[in-house]
Amino acid sequence: MAEDLKTIISHSKEYGFVYPSSEVYEGLSAVYDYGPLGAELKNNIKSYWWKSMVRMHENIVGLDAAIFMHPKIWKASGHVDAFNDPMMDNKDSKKRYRADVLIEDEIAKIEGKIDKEVRKGRKRFGDAFDEEQFKSTHPRVQRYTETIADIKSKLGAAMMADDMTGLRQLVEDLDIADPVSGSRNWTDVRQFNLMFSTQLGNISGENSELYLRPETAQGIFVNFLNVMKTSRQKIPFGIAQIGKAFRNEIVARQFIFRMREFEQMEMQYFIPPGSEMEWYEYWKEQRMKWHLALGTPQEHLRFHKHENLSHYANAAADIEYKFGFGFKELEGIHSRTDFDLKNHQEFSGKKLQYFDPETKENYIPYVLETSIGCDRMFLAMLSESLQEEEVPDASGKKSTRTVMKLHPVLAPVKAAILPLVRNKPELTERARKIFDDLKMHFQCQYDEKDAIGRRYRRQDAIGTPFCLTIDFETIEDDQKITIRDRDSLEQKRVTVEEARDIILKSTNEAILLQQ
Amino acid sequence: MAEDLKTIISHSKEYGFVYPSSEVYEGLSAVYDYGPLGAELKNNIKSYWWKSMVRMHENIVGLDAAIFMHPKIWKASGHVDAFNDPMMDNKDSKKRYRADVLIEDEIAKIEGKIDKEVRKGRKRFGDAFDEEQFKSTHPRVQRYTETIADIKSKLGAAMMADDMTGLRQLVEDLDIADPVSGSRNWTDVRQFNLMFSTQLGNISGENSELYLRPETAQGIFVNFLNVMKTSRQKIPFGIAQIGKAFRNEIVARQFIFRMREFEQMEMQYFIPPGSEMEWYEYWKEQRMKWHLALGTPQEHLRFHKHENLSHYANAAADIEYKFGFGFKELEGIHSRTDFDLKNHQEFSGKKLQYFDPETKENYIPYVLETSIGCDRMFLAMLSESLQEEEVPDASGKKSTRTVMKLHPVLAPVKAAILPLVRNKPELTERARKIFDDLKMHFQCQYDEKDAIGRRYRRQDAIGTPFCLTIDFETIEDDQKITIRDRDSLEQKRVTVEEARDIILKSTNEAILLQQ
Repeated sequence: MAEDLKTIISHSKEYGFVYPSSEVYEGLSAVYDYGPLGAELKNNIKSYWWKSMVRMHENIVGLDAAIFMHPKIWKASGHVDAFNDPMMDNKDSKKRYRADVLIEDEIAKIEGKIDKEVRKGRKRFGDAFDEEQFKSTHPRVQRYTETIADIKSKLGAAMMADDMTGLRQLVEDLDIADPVSGSRNWTDVRQFNLMFSTQLGNISGENSELYLRPETAQGIFVNFLNVMKTSRQKIPFGIAQIGKAFRNEIVARQFIFRMREFEQMEMQYFIPPGSEMEWYEYWKEQRMKWHLALGTPQEHLRFHKHENLSHYANAAADIEYKFGFGFKELEGIHSRTDFDLKNHQEFSGKKLQYFDPETKENYIPYVLETSIGCDRMFLAMLSESLQEEEVPDASGKKSTRTVMKLHPVLAPVKAAILPLVRNKPELTERARKIFDDLKMHFQCQYDEKDAIGRRYRRQDAIGTPFCLTIDFETIEDDQKITIRDRDSLEQKRVTVEEARDIILKSTNEAILLQQ
Repeated sequence: MAEDLKTIISHSKEYGFVYPSSEVYEGLSAVYDYGPLGAELKNNIKSYWWKSMVRMHENIVGLDAAIFMHPKIWKASGHVDAFNDPMMDNKDSKKRYRADVLIEDEIAKIEGKIDKEVRKGRKRFGDAFDEEQFKSTHPRVQRYTETIADIKSKLGAAMMADDMTGLRQLVEDLDIADPVSGSRNWTDVRQFNLMFSTQLGNISGENSELYLRPETAQGIFVNFLNVMKTSRQKIPFGIAQIGKAFRNEIVARQFIFRMREFEQMEMQYFIPPGSEMEWYEYWKEQRMKWHLALGTPQEHLRFHKHENLSHYANAAADIEYKFGFGFKELEGIHSRTDFDLKNHQEFSGKKLQYFDPETKENYIPYVLETSIGCDRMFLAMLSESLQEEEVPDASGKKSTRTVMKLHPVLAPVKAAILPLVRNKPELTERARKIFDDLKMHFQCQYDEKDAIGRRYRRQDAIGTPFCLTIDFETIEDDQKITIRDRDSLEQKRVTVEEARDIILKSTNEAILLQQ
């Protein structure tokens, strides 16, 4: 597992997984492009999700709604009024900041001071040092701790109450300076909406403002009736969707973890009111299983229950993954109640209800949502799989290799076809023939350049689960090839057909879906 | 083949292929959502394209660049300055129109008058009527024909010269009235850019205007160096990409044929200057083969060579499909020269060149592009496959069925699992078991409602290539099931494993890729 984000970023760039967007134009902040291997890995993640949701469930169907939607939808969903960040400008540097982040950075500074005292204490007392006791008795540390608790409480109160004046006051009280200019010359704090807006500019005399959707969920809600009728579903049933969403984040950090343009894989499950806690538990379990099936160890995954619930939810938990920078949200499981459908019913004037054929009653369904960030899942898979390890080299000596231990179903390239040497046409022609046969079935790479050991390393570095070597015995004697397993390093002589079947079996999504 | 767009639109809505976007909010003009079956069909089209481009070609790799890109890119590509429509407002109705479309509508009106005369002539002369001779001698028709030629010539000249005053004059000369208000009170004609723009609004003091990409190609060009290096390619090689693009069209018509938000499947092939005509012919042929492999008859496809070339091209042809509303562009094959890379080199100040290891020279590669509209391909497949035909019903009498003869590789549902009756648990349990086994391998539907004939019709209407019926013999006697072929209506008794293999074989993309 790669702990260090820098290692992941540079590996991603070097091997064509992820590039900074518009790099030749000095980049575009918090936007990234997926390179050749990244595009394959992302497609494989999406395909596994889609099949586990749609193909495996009779009562879950897909949807692919447009990014553009009627602007009233974002009024109904609450995004126009409440999807804001509190921002302030420094008048000297002309830089803009999120007020709450400035305050949180201040808290982090004080925490740094505590850490410093702890380090000093440890140095002084050596083995006898008791960190808990030290913290609860050291007067300066105690003062810091109290200050932090005080700031956190004020910050929480101001954020909950949308109190911009309170936030401004807090920045002033804490004497926070612009990290760039050092100036304390701040504007007032104002709410900035996180939605990107654009204009249907060629239509005159109409209210033509459009938003780029900040979440894919609303596309599901407004299509709820159409989907239910045309796919002949009865409650409970679900609608699954993969698609882009956009948020005008100012603090876009940690590589592809938080981007302005990102991709969501969401499923909204429509259920009778009152059954939501049962389905909440059911989908928490199902989604955790989905992650575990990929081989991610349980200790790298955990549930985090939300204490402060969003306005639309009556229960919510995250599945968190242990990134190098800590346990962070990968997926959310939210009981959204009837908040969205009720609001769309009110704002559109259309009945968004289900007629229960048994009770003969109409009701607005409740919704249980599972929402996973495709790019975060991608980053989790990079983090989890990328590692350096000691292996014996050709001569039996220890050497270090960089390897991505991606699940074979997710691996961008399934098999590399390697003629032992490049200067023997009998070998390379046979190898090419095998390549041409196998590429009908899965993504292959043909590579004849450099010594075989170096080619193995290249394939290890991009997570290719199988290397097939064509040597002189193949063409002269047994017609067999050598199949090498990326993880066990085991090598076996097999026929081409046997190799094909081994690879087909271990890279088929059915392997994951059966679990 | 369905000629009538209305039939296609209503079928799409009824069976969950395509819905108008935001329908409960009275819709959003020229934006559509793909329903459960539409999402599957679109995914299958994308997967076939991706595999035929990326998996089948050693020297073509994928890319998934972001929609947001550095704004300078659109300056370099020419879109900021030259990607415009000539628009004018009617001062009374406050409606906005494309001036060239108003003029073209006027031409269509005159063509309508010619048609009327022709109909009158045919009525009068009966079998003796010779349309060509009539048109070339009838004085009124001749006058109309001359007028049309005159308008077309003036319109063409004004459009080529970006002559807004000339367009305004033409509208005035033709005495064109607003179709809504009947008023002739027009504003001047102005150029409107077709790109949607948005703001990185939370960054103060920076030029923060962003565009939604109007084409995916530029994402490939600016990543050219990164991709070439990290995937170790040499020229010639290609980069393939599927993604959304956005154009602020005012005349968005013909269902999903021209939308404001659409999806492109593009491949840019980087080649030595001078080799472009050879590659142009090569890719024209390859792309035509791709379409034919799906079973689309040659007479529904044709090449259309561009006479007026875009500023970046030195050769261009469309593959046109015979839609109900005429032969229209489905895909473009364009020789883009070094226009884009050269401009990006100039605007970015970075060398975007290839070092040829043989000649030891640096050069800016030429580009051969294949660009297909995913939504148009979707519409072509609907048009081509949807039909009404006479078939014998269960009792042997003729009856009419609606059937979508989609290629099995594209069909949204591969197999329907149908217990003969629903009230025998032995049958339905066995059917469900078969369903649970087969869904591991492909998209299935379980259906036990209504008589078997009606269920067949439902599956025909959504293009399911195979229906599997579980009857009393299955559970009592031979363990076999009946597999019914959608097109031939042939029914065979086979084991479940045999059925699985038949379906796997005929729905595997390899069937298309081998052609």
